[in-house]
Amino acid sequence: MPGNSQNRTENEPAGEADLLLFNADWVLTCSPGMDRLQGGAVAVLGENILSVGSTEDIRKNFICREELDLSGHLLMPGLINTHTHAAMSIFRGLADDLPLKKWLEEAIFPAEGAFIDSHTVYLGTLLSALEMLKSGTTTFCDGYFFEESAARAAFESGMRAVLGQGILDFPTPDHASPGASRARAEEFLESFGGIDGRVRPSLFCHAPYTCSPETMKWAKEMCRQAGILFQTHLSESAWEVDEIMGRYGRRPAAHLDSLGVLDEMTLCAHGIWLSRDEIATLAKSGSSISHCPQSSMKLGSGTAPVGALVSAGVTVGLGTDSAASNNDLNLFSEMDTAAKLHKVIEGDPLACPATQALRMATIEAAAAIGLEKEIGSIEPGKKADIIAVDCRRPHLVPIYDPVSQVVYSANGSEVAFVWIDGALVVDRGKVVAINEADVLDEANRLGKRISRKLGAGSRS
Amino acid sequence: MPGNSQNRTENEPAGEADLLLFNADWVLTCSPGMDRLQGGAVAVLGENILSVGSTEDIRKNFICREELDLSGHLLMPGLINTHTHAAMSIFRGLADDLPLKKWLEEAIFPAEGAFIDSHTVYLGTLLSALEMLKSGTTTFCDGYFFEESAARAAFESGMRAVLGQGILDFPTPDHASPGASRARAEEFLESFGGIDGRVRPSLFCHAPYTCSPETMKWAKEMCRQAGILFQTHLSESAWEVDEIMGRYGRRPAAHLDSLGVLDEMTLCAHGIWLSRDEIATLAKSGSSISHCPQSSMKLGSGTAPVGALVSAGVTVGLGTDSAASNNDLNLFSEMDTAAKLHKVIEGDPLACPATQALRMATIEAAAAIGLEKEIGSIEPGKKADIIAVDCRRPHLVPIYDPVSQVVYSANGSEVAFVWIDGALVVDRGKVVAINEADVLDEANRLGKRISRKLGAGSRS
Repeated sequence: MPGNSQNRTENEPAGEADLLLFNADWVLTCSPGMDRLQGGAVAVLGENILSVGSTEDIRKNFICREELDLSGHLLMPGLINTHTHAAMSIFRGLADDLPLKKWLEEAIFPAEGAFIDSHTVYLGTLLSALEMLKSGTTTFCDGYFFEESAARAAFESGMRAVLGQGILDFPTPDHASPGASRARAEEFLESFGGIDGRVRPSLFCHAPYTCSPETMKWAKEMCRQAGILFQTHLSESAWEVDEIMGRYGRRPAAHLDSLGVLDEMTLCAHGIWLSRDEIATLAKSGSSISHCPQSSMKLGSGTAPVGALVSAGVTVGLGTDSAASNNDLNLFSEMDTAAKLHKVIEGDPLACPATQALRMATIEAAAAIGLEKEIGSIEPGKKADIIAVDCRRPHLVPIYDPVSQVVYSANGSEVAFVWIDGALVVDRGKVVAINEADVLDEANRLGKRISRKLGAGSRS
Repeated sequence: MPGNSQNRTENEPAGEADLLLFNADWVLTCSPGMDRLQGGAVAVLGENILSVGSTEDIRKNFICREELDLSGHLLMPGLINTHTHAAMSIFRGLADDLPLKKWLEEAIFPAEGAFIDSHTVYLGTLLSALEMLKSGTTTFCDGYFFEESAARAAFESGMRAVLGQGILDFPTPDHASPGASRARAEEFLESFGGIDGRVRPSLFCHAPYTCSPETMKWAKEMCRQAGILFQTHLSESAWEVDEIMGRYGRRPAAHLDSLGVLDEMTLCAHGIWLSRDEIATLAKSGSSISHCPQSSMKLGSGTAPVGALVSAGVTVGLGTDSAASNNDLNLFSEMDTAAKLHKVIEGDPLACPATQALRMATIEAAAAIGLEKEIGSIEPGKKADIIAVDCRRPHLVPIYDPVSQVVYSANGSEVAFVWIDGALVVDRGKVVAINEADVLDEANRLGKRISRKLGAGSRS
């Protein structure tokens, strides 16, 4: 059980740390060796992890300004959601159990047209931040409209985020004419001071069937110049494959490859209907896949070939997709579903083991969004994005294997503390920086307005 | 939106009730019409539901000894878990991501042999009762060894239970010789004063491949004479079908039918590998299926043909199976998984809608275990087994469709109050009758002993 604590002689002077998390029943590091430390501790200095090791070693080696005894808790890296449309939580459950086309055309598009503006994006993203923080997610990779407002919500919540301004070749809530899409994207990128902060910009071309080849190429070039992540949906449905084959004579991933938009800084969401050649193409390009099992199950879209993707060398991170198609943003339940879904689909109880599911929500997710050097594991030098899971719950007792417990038994409600950049953002289950009651009240009021306008809930 | 409140004139004297639950944001009745009442109330007298309707009507019509304002909450019937091995929660996560045979032979059987006794069954069932109650389950239908001890735990916890003493034709933890199995079963049945209490006896023949035709027939006859539920596992794996075909020249359900053990008081767990003829046979017999999607996914066993079963007229209730193969006993997450799994398996977003998932965890589950006249819905005359879900959570806001919210967004951690037989058993998330800390401490100590003996957790 290798630790990462610094080896020091007893007489050496102690180092200084801002925060010492000690006595954790387990520390799941998600390091390359997936080290798990029993009775572990983590020392934090400023925004970064200074050291990880046994409680004894860490306490001996560091003088700390602040300490927290985490007996009965498990420490692990904050979870990373690689695919969200966070603002859409205001449409959670607005229209379920419908075919995709009807869901989009009769519910989601009208709702977006009538209710998405800079304020509702801010409100919906705050609502999502509350949900994500309380269930242990510290980073989300988003794509939607009015993303400056999503950025404001992310900043205020304390979350880490990669925010993709949405680009489509037809009118959307934040750009009335298709041509304005590019100007909006430029404006969005300019609104960021830099690309290395806690909240970072990205561009999100909606899909190969809603963005022309020119739009795709333009957006990817903008991303390349800025050094930021390019995102798109890819092969979410069998329909899309037929459509792109019909238009361009190539399957969707091959089409994207022919446009030159696939590289290490491209993240493709879903990637369900992929041929062997397309999987090889993705692997060669270094592009990543955001795997959103629950959303794809609910829409009956299919299951991404995660085993084949990973075998080919493609980085796969987990995502929830939006709360309108899931209907939550809970990565604990997404890990559980991923681990179980691939077993039943492949008829193999060894498929997608718990360790793989955990990696897809932490270090592989970090790699999928280009942040693996900064987050995704508890290792010295990385950002201190850490969560503490309260194991004193009937459904988490006893613990034989902490990874199994986290993936198959935990549901996110056990997250007691969350730190991002070393700052405490969830304290005993309460989000520090957001007035939860105010956000819930306003979201409920907005929900009532949406119901009245669109006739939702009339099934009762 | 039809209510069930009694129609009374203003001058009529008010009725008396013991408990009035009022101002609920929603009451999901799970009545035949799946009525949902906004701003609803429920009046309870003794163990039974007296009336259901609008808060205004109910408050006008009843004088109550005790009232509870449930603003911000949703009321629904307590959930019913149709398939558990509750005591096995002490083995939760002991061995995961293994093939079924290896899991059973190298982990579960040795663990059972070394650690299952009347005390550990009591402890494990108490631990499961804590988990189930806190996540809104009020009734569980169980099968295991030392079921008198499970009965003691169920009695003490306040839960409703149908407890099946396990019968196998080989030595088990509670009967050393195969022949003793029948004596143990008789002894178990005799230990019950009657068959209509909150905790009821049943017999559980493990499976067609572990029980001879004679054993099956004997046990079913015992159940018929006693008027109680007969349970068995059925067609959980493709291997079982081959095995039974080889032994008896019939597929498993056809084999059970040929033995005369299928009728309205027979519950078959899993029912995954069923032919069309077998589905018709089950329908004709009136036997029910316990559908355990998460356990079957995790073991890579397959997916029960729920659509075909329900179309044929077979009653299907949800179950979790044991925490050793799931790894939790959470019916909220089981509803979510069921609703999503059938969509992706059938490639149809209309498969297993939220309403069906909810019915499979309430009224259909009640029918599957023969208790549909007593529980499974909030209707006058039924037992007052009711749960209150706190909707003031970020992941449950806003609410357009309360059934969608319960199935796709809730995870069970929102259950604030639980009543069984009209008695409060969970109060603001705390189980009233069990000392939770004591049970967790003892289960953790036992877990450490099991780890030491079996080498679990050594992967770290």
